[in-house]
Amino acid sequence: MRDWEVAAREAVRDLLARYNFCGDRGRFEELLDLFAEDATLVTDVGTHVGKPAIRQLFVGAVDPEPERIRHFTSTVVIDCVADDRATARSYFQVLTGSGLDHWGTYRDVLVRLGDIWLFSRREARVDGMVPGGWAARRLGRREL
Amino acid sequence: MRDWEVAAREAVRDLLARYNFCGDRGRFEELLDLFAEDATLVTDVGTHVGKPAIRQLFVGAVDPEPERIRHFTSTVVIDCVADDRATARSYFQVLTGSGLDHWGTYRDVLVRLGDIWLFSRREARVDGMVPGGWAARRLGRREL
Amino acid sequence: MRDWEVAAREAVRDLLARYNFCGDRGRFEELLDLFAEDATLVTDVGTHVGKPAIRQLFVGAVDPEPERIRHFTSTVVIDCVADDRATARSYFQVLTGSGLDHWGTYRDVLVRLGDIWLFSRREARVDGMVPGGWAARRLGRREL
Repeated sequence: MRDWEVAAREAVRDLLARYNFCGDRGRFEELLDLFAEDATLVTDVGTHVGKPAIRQLFVGAVDPEPERIRHFTSTVVIDCVADDRATARSYFQVLTGSGLDHWGTYRDVLVRLGDIWLFSRREARVDGMVPGGWAARRLGRREL
Repeated sequence: MRDWEVAAREAVRDLLARYNFCGDRGRFEELLDLFAEDATLVTDVGTHVGKPAIRQLFVGAVDPEPERIRHFTSTVVIDCVADDRATARSYFQVLTGSGLDHWGTYRDVLVRLGDIWLFSRREARVDGMVPGGWAARRLGRREL
Repeated sequence: MRDWEVAAREAVRDLLARYNFCGDRGRFEELLDLFAEDATLVTDVGTHVGKPAIRQLFVGAVDPEPERIRHFTSTVVIDCVADDRATARSYFQVLTGSGLDHWGTYRDVLVRLGDIWLFSRREARVDGMVPGGWAARRLGRREL
């Protein structure tokens, strides 16, 4: 593995973790900074193209309940397609105040702009959820 | 830490994640490609030496139920013994459609062949399981 | 990202994982070796300054029950402040023999002494716990 690839993979891993930390704390501006201008965010309730649409999704997802959300992301597989393009797959678990709520898979396309790696496309799919939990209730309302 | 060690550690971490992604999707050929020819795979039900024996274990482990298995692997400790040999320890959690099913510890010996890192030995031990879950039922039949 | 930063981040990630592996196995001397002499460890029950105080915390935390503790740490965000100083944030889940017990957030300051990265400050905060679990019972006695 070449040095540039090691650095690229480290930057991608950092981007993935930062997304979760910003998201769990409702820091939407920092979250949006992680996306390319024309990025696409796909979730189980729809496809959002471009930063304005992604911003709207984040703002609309604000929910006074639960107070504390934690995304545990692991099993990160990264493939460097070029020195400015990579794909990544990873798993996430979401814990609320009650424990495990739902879990799923991220599939990402990452691009490097100058020194910065950004999401070009993020697909977040729920693989399972606790019956009666937060996600189960929201998904019933198509809000996840 | 030298550059070669950083690259080696990154390759080892990639190998560990790839094993889980291939395994969760039943991609046995890709999974086998991650092992050295004379590799050993140790699980709670036995020791499997060489790729043919490991292949047999994977094929025999196919189970129509549950549909979705997800291995969340984290807390990865890697020790580079030489520039072509490393050991790793990590924890895994397995979620089925019902949530957490079982969890355990991987202990690995990794070797580099040319540019590729492979499992020389993988030991997967279950540390706990949910009573009445998938693993608990299989382990009762010695199939895990 | 420069080569030194990639190496620093790898060393920090290693330090975080090693802490959990040593802790889960009760290897307190190895655990203490991960801290700087004047390090601070902050938990929900108090602040411990210097290695002797940290050692006392570890020894006092020994509990015959549960037998098996596993810390699953993921979503690691690392910021290199200088070539000998970094901060990190990560999430941990603790599983006992009964499954998920409690979970929380680490906030760390890491320093490099020569070739070795050490904890200068670690703050471990519990974000949630399973009612009636091990942490819930200990925290009731202010022992966590």
